Amino acid sequence: MSDIGEETRGRSKANEPAHDIYTEEGAVRPDFLARVGAAIADRDVLYLRQHVARLHESELGDLLESIMPDQRRAMVRLLGTDFDLTALTEVDEAIRMEIVEHMSNAQIAAGIGGLDSDDAVYILEDLDKEDREEILAQLPFTERVRLRRALDYPESSAGRRMQTEFVAVPPFWTVGQTIDYMREDEGLPESFTQVFVIDPTFKLLGVIYLDRILRTNRQVKIETIMRETNYPIPADMDQEEAAQLFEQYDLLSAAVVDENGRLVGVLTIDDIVDVMQEEAEEDIMRLGGVGDEELSDTVVDISRSRVPWLLVNLLTAFLAASVISLFEATIEEVVALAILMPIVAGMGGNAGSQTMTVTVRAIATRDLDIHNAWRVARREICVGLINGCLIGTLVGLVAGFWFQDPNIGGLIATAMLINMVAAASAGLMVPILLNRAGADPAVSSAVFVTAITDTTGFFSFLGLATWWFAIG
Amino acid sequence: MSDIGEETRGRSKANEPAHDIYTEEGAVRPDFLARVGAAIADRDVLYLRQHVARLHESELGDLLESIMPDQRRAMVRLLGTDFDLTALTEVDEAIRMEIVEHMSNAQIAAGIGGLDSDDAVYILEDLDKEDREEILAQLPFTERVRLRRALDYPESSAGRRMQTEFVAVPPFWTVGQTIDYMREDEGLPESFTQVFVIDPTFKLLGVIYLDRILRTNRQVKIETIMRETNYPIPADMDQEEAAQLFEQYDLLSAAVVDENGRLVGVLTIDDIVDVMQEEAEEDIMRLGGVGDEELSDTVVDISRSRVPWLLVNLLTAFLAASVISLFEATIEEVVALAILMPIVAGMGGNAGSQTMTVTVRAIATRDLDIHNAWRVARREICVGLINGCLIGTLVGLVAGFWFQDPNIGGLIATAMLINMVAAASAGLMVPILLNRAGADPAVSSAVFVTAITDTTGFFSFLGLATWWFAIG
Repeated sequence: MSDIGEETRGRSKANEPAHDIYTEEGAVRPDFLARVGAAIADRDVLYLRQHVARLHESELGDLLESIMPDQRRAMVRLLGTDFDLTALTEVDEAIRMEIVEHMSNAQIAAGIGGLDSDDAVYILEDLDKEDREEILAQLPFTERVRLRRALDYPESSAGRRMQTEFVAVPPFWTVGQTIDYMREDEGLPESFTQVFVIDPTFKLLGVIYLDRILRTNRQVKIETIMRETNYPIPADMDQEEAAQLFEQYDLLSAAVVDENGRLVGVLTIDDIVDVMQEEAEEDIMRLGGVGDEELSDTVVDISRSRVPWLLVNLLTAFLAASVISLFEATIEEVVALAILMPIVAGMGGNAGSQTMTVTVRAIATRDLDIHNAWRVARREICVGLINGCLIGTLVGLVAGFWFQDPNIGGLIATAMLINMVAAASAGLMVPILLNRAGADPAVSSAVFVTAITDTTGFFSFLGLATWWFAIG
Repeated sequence: MSDIGEETRGRSKANEPAHDIYTEEGAVRPDFLARVGAAIADRDVLYLRQHVARLHESELGDLLESIMPDQRRAMVRLLGTDFDLTALTEVDEAIRMEIVEHMSNAQIAAGIGGLDSDDAVYILEDLDKEDREEILAQLPFTERVRLRRALDYPESSAGRRMQTEFVAVPPFWTVGQTIDYMREDEGLPESFTQVFVIDPTFKLLGVIYLDRILRTNRQVKIETIMRETNYPIPADMDQEEAAQLFEQYDLLSAAVVDENGRLVGVLTIDDIVDVMQEEAEEDIMRLGGVGDEELSDTVVDISRSRVPWLLVNLLTAFLAASVISLFEATIEEVVALAILMPIVAGMGGNAGSQTMTVTVRAIATRDLDIHNAWRVARREICVGLINGCLIGTLVGLVAGFWFQDPNIGGLIATAMLINMVAAASAGLMVPILLNRAGADPAVSSAVFVTAITDTTGFFSFLGLATWWFAIG
């Protein structure tokens, strides 16, 4: 999946720049889509081989996502063995499943034979156990064993994401022997950036980057220039944890070892970048109250995945309504309160979501924890006080003039200040407490924060008004 | 900034695993903080040199972020030339500025001399022009010229992020000559994964990855094994655009060229990972209505950065209030409407933010554009209809029983359905239109979507009620 392999395979032609299939905004060009569509309809295999089969895997992926389902199936069929299965790692899961289901196991097996092991695993792991076994059975022995070993590791583990192809040499070899081995051995991986040093049982002893080999004289022993690998990654480590190690220590690649410290594969930054992107994506989606839906999902799937969050929010909405109903009599007397009360609740919600967003991110990036929470809490409450005073005064003035009543102005200003401070506290404490309780703060914080700002907003404004007009 | 350099420098000791300074949750261990604090108070330079100076740059960064400002300054002073300035690239901007301001230009110059050029630029670019010039003046000529050239490129451009150290050879050299050159030349960069091929004017001709060199016989000419660089990056390209290229084509590194196609530096994936993370971070923060604030910012800074968004939301809140005020008479008669109306508006807001989150992400990842917008629109409206029916029916039943009035139930159910469809349309169209107009959909979508769901919610519910009770 790295560009090293790409350039070596030379799939993109120099006189036909790859970016060409895209419009300025990054969509696939409509005229290209039309031309491909026509070629599919005409069964113009020659055009497809020349203009589609040569696309970069990610371009082919974008193309697959941009055409109709029946066009996808027809195109994959027409391309036959010229269809690069790596493109399947670049499309939405729903589209991948749809394409794979319409391919014969023989075609999949033929295509998978040419892939890097991490890409092969990525495609195989979503298949039925039966299909997977049938495909594996058609692969050469070594490859089958390697893929099976990777598939044996738990889902989303480093073992699933690793490449099982690597270059390893014994520590007693010289630099010269190593270079000669690399010049002569035909079975080396397509591309690599480091050489691992292992003992006869495959136990990982060290690592050497290629620039070190190139800069060292031929007679020098490997063991004298090898480096200890500071961060060997256990194959069953979760991919997110592995991504954090990559990020923290700016790793480009890392050895993956089994429970006995034996080298089983290598994890590279390009796979980790995908994991990081998925992570950030997940946080954004969760904060917005949506699950892992994709643009290609069906209406029913999406509706089903979004309803639960709406139902939880409905509970808080009724909670807020029941707070309002406590003050029915006051509202009947002063209708202005009904008109203004959504402002108090809504602005509290906005301020609360600001604090909450910062808090959720700080927890995710591990910048915030129980130890510095107090310092941050003091700061957030101060910000709540300042912004509460500013916005409260402004709202008070506007409302006072609108309803020609300074009482209304004073009441809403005070309620606003109270709710802004409540919003700051809730926006900070809810994610921290959820995190401590072992829940994902990104998923559920918003509901609790809104519940607090809504009820506080309505209660403070209507409560203050009831009390004020009662004594007034 | 890559692990290649790290392992070569061997800063982490094997018998003292790096992860050790962290608790399970990833915070810096309190007892380590206390021990460092004591060492700073006791001016125990020996302890600091042994236990702090040897930390990985990112660990030192985390440590700096976890101690008090006066401790930071004292520690940097005590460490003197043992303080690794790379750690400054790992901390919040506010902390970086604070530390740098308390260092002498001479100390900064001494520290910067040992850094990779991209890290040096990262620190220098935030300084006053005067300080920067004074520091540059103290550096050796070649380094000064290189850093100045990088600093001349616009902020956030590829030229700013690139490393200016690289290995380049002429095309007529043989593999043997190239290897000998690498073995003998002392001035090579600390680590590298590729060799560039240039003509005498530094014009970029091609690139060779180190594994290709190692696998080729000594007498082979470089020009016969070099590859065209498919994606040379113009130095003035925005770093986000560069990041998109890296992501799309799974690049590990790319040549950076000036306007004449001359090689000026190399951009590597580890710098790009930081750009990608910042990007995702920015989207999350913008959707939550906060700017680029950091945990270390002051109360006033934060308040100032959050107020504008609150003010814009205040406008929409007053707009919603003015819609309610149109129906003052109806509310006076049926107070139940005032109690229930926030439910209609709020649930619309929730549904709208679901659709909006998906849309904003789809635009950011370039999965959604004007060409497939219709397909997605149909889907979202269908989801809005289905969820509107489900939630509407449920709310109608609860409200009808609560107020013992089937009219109320029917009214709120209908209003809810209308608002859910409006929410779906707004959540989809607002980000698309903002994006077409050249605005960042993540920043401003929420305000418009809320404005639409609030006004539609209040207007449909209260309007329907007014009409119903008037004819009833």
